[in-house]
Amino acid sequence: MDWSDGFIAGDWGTTNRRAYRIDASGKCVDEFEDNKGVLAVAAGGFPAAVAEIRQRLGDLPLLLAGMIGSNRGWKEAPYVAAPAGLDELAKGLVWAGKREAIVPGVSYLKNHRADVMRGEEVQLLGAVASGQVGEGLVSHPGTHNKWVTLRDGKITGFRTVMTGELFGLLKEHSILSDLLQGPVEPNDIFKEAARFAIFHEALPAELFTVRARVLLGQAKAEDAPSYASGLLIGTDVRIGLSLPTSAQIAVVGRPELTRLYAAAIAEARRDAVELDGEQCFLAGIHEIAKRIEA
Amino acid sequence: MDWSDGFIAGDWGTTNRRAYRIDASGKCVDEFEDNKGVLAVAAGGFPAAVAEIRQRLGDLPLLLAGMIGSNRGWKEAPYVAAPAGLDELAKGLVWAGKREAIVPGVSYLKNHRADVMRGEEVQLLGAVASGQVGEGLVSHPGTHNKWVTLRDGKITGFRTVMTGELFGLLKEHSILSDLLQGPVEPNDIFKEAARFAIFHEALPAELFTVRARVLLGQAKAEDAPSYASGLLIGTDVRIGLSLPTSAQIAVVGRPELTRLYAAAIAEARRDAVELDGEQCFLAGIHEIAKRIEA
Repeated sequence: MDWSDGFIAGDWGTTNRRAYRIDASGKCVDEFEDNKGVLAVAAGGFPAAVAEIRQRLGDLPLLLAGMIGSNRGWKEAPYVAAPAGLDELAKGLVWAGKREAIVPGVSYLKNHRADVMRGEEVQLLGAVASGQVGEGLVSHPGTHNKWVTLRDGKITGFRTVMTGELFGLLKEHSILSDLLQGPVEPNDIFKEAARFAIFHEALPAELFTVRARVLLGQAKAEDAPSYASGLLIGTDVRIGLSLPTSAQIAVVGRPELTRLYAAAIAEARRDAVELDGEQCFLAGIHEIAKRIEA
Repeated sequence: MDWSDGFIAGDWGTTNRRAYRIDASGKCVDEFEDNKGVLAVAAGGFPAAVAEIRQRLGDLPLLLAGMIGSNRGWKEAPYVAAPAGLDELAKGLVWAGKREAIVPGVSYLKNHRADVMRGEEVQLLGAVASGQVGEGLVSHPGTHNKWVTLRDGKITGFRTVMTGELFGLLKEHSILSDLLQGPVEPNDIFKEAARFAIFHEALPAELFTVRARVLLGQAKAEDAPSYASGLLIGTDVRIGLSLPTSAQIAVVGRPELTRLYAAAIAEARRDAVELDGEQCFLAGIHEIAKRIEA
């Protein structure tokens, strides 16, 4: 199998996909993003969706990560149990064709706790491989934030918090909907709410105060999105900091989210460093590709 | 004004309304329920919607409670500040017509905490007036559960928890949706989840385990609704029991909800007594009507 001329890396999620052409030196030389996420592809439609990627980026081998490997995706890639590093991911690759490999997700079971991730593992281990993260605690915000403990280059445990999805549900469908349409900023209102949520619990009660504060003239309607986001992300940080932690906490993901998490982590009087998730993905997927060639 | 021949009591909420004909002795002699909640009535449509009630139950004075008095209702009845009892509600009545009175909601402000209720106050004070509840803590589950402290026949403080709405959002629109369609029962699974949530916090993380447990073979899909409900109601009980409490906790509302809350409260090793919300409403609205006649 010839991966030495380069390959196409795909980060194929539920609602979006990003594809990158990686040259022989490991550099990304072309890319595109569209909204053909897993849910937008009909059953049996994946070969055509993959052909389209090659049409745009070249006739190269494909290495795909994310929900493309779920039971709603192209071919299921069973979870690899934590502790899991790049070697374990490479060993767990599932081949959808002769030149199409899918990276498995990672599962975590401890006592009664069960958790899964799919897609974030490449970014997290890419951050390690590129020397940006050592041991310790990493946050990966998104629809579902993942708090991940890393040791010896492996994911040793993690916890998922449904923060992004809950904010979306409240914004789209709840009694708070009309108040949550504006932008979220890591401003003083956000920080006040985050601080409150970090040091006091009671999320499903505090969320209702978003409306009550406005009704009773205690808060301005335009501050509601940042306040609600602060409550949710502060609660998330509270949960994350209950895990074994490190002096510095890395936050890996899209910059518009990592800045919010970094601001909330600062309210917990901890240091956060923001890393770009896309760069971490490219580092991680390249490491996995190298292990195929070996 | 002649209320001595009886009156029509209305519990007019966001999505439903219930109307009762009360005779001169205070007995309910006729009633109906339909889905003409406040949101189903167009602006300017309330006189017709009220006429329809009289057509069905008789040409009597009307005393209405609930969201009908909100800014989305017929005529806004400004909140009465806690502490508030039946006298304060009667003094705060707003007249939409010569024979149509609307009961105000109750607001609560303390330090930075802001909260409001509209509709529950009649049931809660009715439970007191009928001797079913004395001092102490009362839960009123619904779309938004209210934990209410009562003293000297007044609502002295309260806290709203968005439990019912969150369960609805998760059931209708979330990644857990397919798992949450079945019935919720106060069974062992529910109690296990409630106990966990009462003694550990982390709701937005535990909710994700509902899916992960099934994916990893740790739980049966058909148990997911009771498990998720137990997590939500257990968290709610945890918040409620942080308020000044009483030996026995009354739970006022619809029987299908009060039984779940009573089961969760028992897991916190506290006694709960279930009261039928409709009977409490009738007791409370009759007491307010008597104060109009006086």
